[in-house]
Amino acid sequence: MNTPNRLLLTIVCEAVLEPLLEEELPPLGVTGYTITDARGLGTHGRRSGAWRKEGNIRVDILCDPALAERVADHLRREYEAHYGLLIFSSPVEVHSA
Amino acid sequence: MNTPNRLLLTIVCEAVLEPLLEEELPPLGVTGYTITDARGLGTHGRRSGAWRKEGNIRVDILCDPALAERVADHLRREYEAHYGLLIFSSPVEVHSA
Amino acid sequence: MNTPNRLLLTIVCEAVLEPLLEEELPPLGVTGYTITDARGLGTHGRRSGAWRKEGNIRVDILCDPALAERVADHLRREYEAHYGLLIFSSPVEVHSA
Repeated sequence: MNTPNRLLLTIVCEAVLEPLLEEELPPLGVTGYTITDARGLGTHGRRSGAWRKEGNIRVDILCDPALAERVADHLRREYEAHYGLLIFSSPVEVHSA
Repeated sequence: MNTPNRLLLTIVCEAVLEPLLEEELPPLGVTGYTITDARGLGTHGRRSGAWRKEGNIRVDILCDPALAERVADHLRREYEAHYGLLIFSSPVEVHSA
Repeated sequence: MNTPNRLLLTIVCEAVLEPLLEEELPPLGVTGYTITDARGLGTHGRRSGAWRKEGNIRVDILCDPALAERVADHLRREYEAHYGLLIFSSPVEVHSA
């Protein structure tokens, strides 16, 4: 039952990135993700001071720490400079997957 | 303020299960839950290889570990064989409930 | 990369509170939040026994423990008596913000 070292990696970003993530996540090793529509406000990524309230998405990925790092590294490199981006993770126990 | 041993149990499943969960969760002891619409992709449950992107839901339940186990056991037994199902939990501190 | 002592503070409340939160959170020190629409059922706040299923929202705020306390204190004081309210937090590691 207990699956050690599983993380829930959460990405909050602009909805315009959804089709890009759908293409880019599987080659990184991501086999599943959940997307929900969100709105919000923030100074994410390097667009400091950009307070917006518009179409964002939240992408949740259940993964191990190495994959979380790989995904976060990729997204920072590709998108942090030009898009609002917030990435965080927390440990979870998996009961069924 | 601190409420030890509280978990956030998260269930990601097909939206068709929502009315079933609404009937089945309260008798198991669940007194509250939050549902959000989601979409995604994954090899959840035993439908390995089923990559879909369609109407899913995410159900979050604040509960203690025993109730989390009871709910997870029930859902695995009833739905894992035939539906996409992802269940995980993480410890949370409750500030107001 | 690692940002110690970061929390994800989650507020589940009635959607009618959204414009009030948008006004009240920034003066408390909140610089970013994510809102998702939710529905659910529960005996939240002091409206014990109020089982409802209707327009709720989920507000997620990435913050430090002091800000989480400040926001939770404010919301309890202002809204717990008259609105359904659920507030919880969990530690997260921030990969990009």
